[in-house]
Amino acid sequence: MTEHLHGNMSSEDFRRAGHAMIDWIADYLDRDVARYPVRSQVEPGWLRPQLPASAPESGESWEAIWTDFETKILPGVTHWQSPHFYAYFPANVSYPAILGELLSAGLGVNGMLWATSPAATELETHVLDWLVDAMDLPPHFKGGGVIQDTASSASLCALLCAREQVTGYVGVRDGTGGGAPLRAYVSEHAHSSIEKAAMILGIGSSNVIAIPGDETHAMRPGALRKAIEQDLRQGLRPCFVCATIGTTSSLAMDPVDAIGKVCREHDLWLHVDAAMAGTALICPEFRAMADGLSYADSYCFNPHKWMFTNFDCDAFYVCDPSRLIRAMSIMPEYLKTADADGVINYRDWHIPLGRRFRALKLWFVLRSFGIEGIRARIREHVALAREFASWIDADDRFERCAPCDLNLVCFRMVGSDDENRRLMSSLNDAGQMYLTHTILDGRFVLRLCIGQTTTTRQHVQQAWAWIQGATGGLAD
Amino acid sequence: MTEHLHGNMSSEDFRRAGHAMIDWIADYLDRDVARYPVRSQVEPGWLRPQLPASAPESGESWEAIWTDFETKILPGVTHWQSPHFYAYFPANVSYPAILGELLSAGLGVNGMLWATSPAATELETHVLDWLVDAMDLPPHFKGGGVIQDTASSASLCALLCAREQVTGYVGVRDGTGGGAPLRAYVSEHAHSSIEKAAMILGIGSSNVIAIPGDETHAMRPGALRKAIEQDLRQGLRPCFVCATIGTTSSLAMDPVDAIGKVCREHDLWLHVDAAMAGTALICPEFRAMADGLSYADSYCFNPHKWMFTNFDCDAFYVCDPSRLIRAMSIMPEYLKTADADGVINYRDWHIPLGRRFRALKLWFVLRSFGIEGIRARIREHVALAREFASWIDADDRFERCAPCDLNLVCFRMVGSDDENRRLMSSLNDAGQMYLTHTILDGRFVLRLCIGQTTTTRQHVQQAWAWIQGATGGLAD
Repeated sequence: MTEHLHGNMSSEDFRRAGHAMIDWIADYLDRDVARYPVRSQVEPGWLRPQLPASAPESGESWEAIWTDFETKILPGVTHWQSPHFYAYFPANVSYPAILGELLSAGLGVNGMLWATSPAATELETHVLDWLVDAMDLPPHFKGGGVIQDTASSASLCALLCAREQVTGYVGVRDGTGGGAPLRAYVSEHAHSSIEKAAMILGIGSSNVIAIPGDETHAMRPGALRKAIEQDLRQGLRPCFVCATIGTTSSLAMDPVDAIGKVCREHDLWLHVDAAMAGTALICPEFRAMADGLSYADSYCFNPHKWMFTNFDCDAFYVCDPSRLIRAMSIMPEYLKTADADGVINYRDWHIPLGRRFRALKLWFVLRSFGIEGIRARIREHVALAREFASWIDADDRFERCAPCDLNLVCFRMVGSDDENRRLMSSLNDAGQMYLTHTILDGRFVLRLCIGQTTTTRQHVQQAWAWIQGATGGLAD
Repeated sequence: MTEHLHGNMSSEDFRRAGHAMIDWIADYLDRDVARYPVRSQVEPGWLRPQLPASAPESGESWEAIWTDFETKILPGVTHWQSPHFYAYFPANVSYPAILGELLSAGLGVNGMLWATSPAATELETHVLDWLVDAMDLPPHFKGGGVIQDTASSASLCALLCAREQVTGYVGVRDGTGGGAPLRAYVSEHAHSSIEKAAMILGIGSSNVIAIPGDETHAMRPGALRKAIEQDLRQGLRPCFVCATIGTTSSLAMDPVDAIGKVCREHDLWLHVDAAMAGTALICPEFRAMADGLSYADSYCFNPHKWMFTNFDCDAFYVCDPSRLIRAMSIMPEYLKTADADGVINYRDWHIPLGRRFRALKLWFVLRSFGIEGIRARIREHVALAREFASWIDADDRFERCAPCDLNLVCFRMVGSDDENRRLMSSLNDAGQMYLTHTILDGRFVLRLCIGQTTTTRQHVQQAWAWIQGATGGLAD
């Protein structure tokens, strides 16, 4: 089959390279990842001068390509899968999820319509329904789940539904220019994705109202009600509230129940964003944070953050998918199929037309771990974070800056912002561990987030020793 | 390392399952895919009753999971990688691209910021610059490339830039409700993604003006100018034109040069969408279709359609990325990094915050095939399509319904729409081949699109024999 070589790669070459890559990945995740600096230590512009200015005219051997990967690309990689990656939020991969990605790539199907791969659509609906039960989500989300790429896209779709609820078909047809400004409300500490979505949807960033938080940085429902009523008095059009279960900044928990009641009073769309924290709902003991979720019109969390499922995999639920479809469905002739009524065509449920077979990896993860297996690991991460928080609390060189309900510890050394900034830089520059920062109550605060697949108590102890050591260095 | 089993999967299990899956994929693409019905033959609702109603409490073995994949999932898969897949548009995968997906999954990095994996950002800019040279794209796109998931998202970003160009910071801040309706123009035959984007951005579907096509279904520049001038007289705000190089419906080629001149006269944003056909620009002899591309403010094509690169991989270029950034950038504290100025943070270049390391697969494809290797295969696909078109032309039971400039043949049997619909159904239901339809000049037309990695002359000859045979059956 020489004429159908894939590049310079025969199927024998692919088998050989593929087996070697599988072994490389196993070595990498089991062992080698811990040998690299966690945050890449390269300077901006490091890579490009090392690469040829033009693509090669003739195909190259796999060996040449792989050598370049190891020598040129790898030093420029920040190792999210390191057990010492405590930055931002986790993106914990697992072997079954990687196999899911590989199989999806090998099948190469596009699940844009039910007909273009029925199993891709039906498996997606099914595993998302599994999660409704496994996490005790409101039953009105059954059948309303769809995998989005990220929580940013899910938030955008939720805000779009809210806009559609107010402006209806006229808005979809004529644009949202007609009436008074639409208004959206979100905690001042919540994810910036709502502001980005409002900018994209033409609602405008100034119409996203940041509701003040309480001492735990959670949204104050009273302040929310006041803001809505004030907007109504001014003739504006409140349409949307986003409550966050676990803000990115400090994992603050907005009171969904109280917020939900306010939304009901004023008939506003309630979206609940639990991007990272949502995975913890698999454990009954953490479900109190979702009290009131039955008020939610839409909900999302990211299995690609903390549920051992490769990026991208955001689980987005809508109680009434017809709103999504009304806001986004277009039906040109070349996409019409002869299906029986009632099939789901997921291309109307998000912005892209095409879509990968992402349900496979989620299905593999749920079956390989089992619900109990996921629970056990989430509990371990939370226990490790709480233990780390207790070390901070017991050491008077440090102070804690937010509650530690789950897997994020916000803390700082007693001292100036600059000293804390230097502490963070010295740790990250050393390459042994990686953490990031936020601002809480006007102060520079370090964030240590525990959720990588291979992080153990021993790693967290080691990280604590490094932090203490670096503090000593700064005090000298 | 028992405590860090990934699900029930040790690294030894992963190696074993991974090697077997690599071999399965090689067997599938080389041989087995041709044994399945191309379009899945299952009925709606086929899969879900076969799956347990709940996720398992305990983890399951890989063998159990894999058996279910083969017996329950695979029959519900439509085989996009079949050499007899002629439907919609190709999604041609290749061995190096699959390895790129696997490696990206194993590394599990999130390239949202330069700092979160410098190589992911720099390699992406670099390979997209390679394509500018390899395809003779306008040099003003150098440094302005970003991988989007799909052309739908790219179109949305382009329209967003156009909106920003007209409404400026005030629009981003206050929403686009202030002024007269914004207007966008696109060929009546072009992709529905512009209409979807206008709905999402709050511009409204009625403000997307369908410009009539000529006898080849290409946009008439004179009609475009007239529509713009009429809108201006009515006080509306023209802002955006999308010219399509190869419409999805019939691969019609809008005259970019003439359209570009109209855009310049009126200072409108010109986006050029070459989702499938764009790959052909790698061959000098097909570049005439892109004459005038130097007028384009943005451009996209999909390596995931015809350039042997796994979905998702849309190459999107903007001449002035600062417009994208102005329209979408938000900068919360927790995303601030201490980079030198001038690095690219791609999260501001599209809707999602997170992003996979997708440049790897494109790099692997370009190096493994080489430019010459891609050219040879594109030429072969075009030659096969033209040969098929010549068979249609020579057979008076059939008629051709559009020019065959590249790899799509639009045709019908002489007879009623119903007969043609039955012809298509009989072919697709038999499972041997898969083609889809469109409506041209009010008539039902079959589309045969050639672009799968393993399609050869022998396959196309066989397809033609099946089509002729099915026609005979209908005539009886």
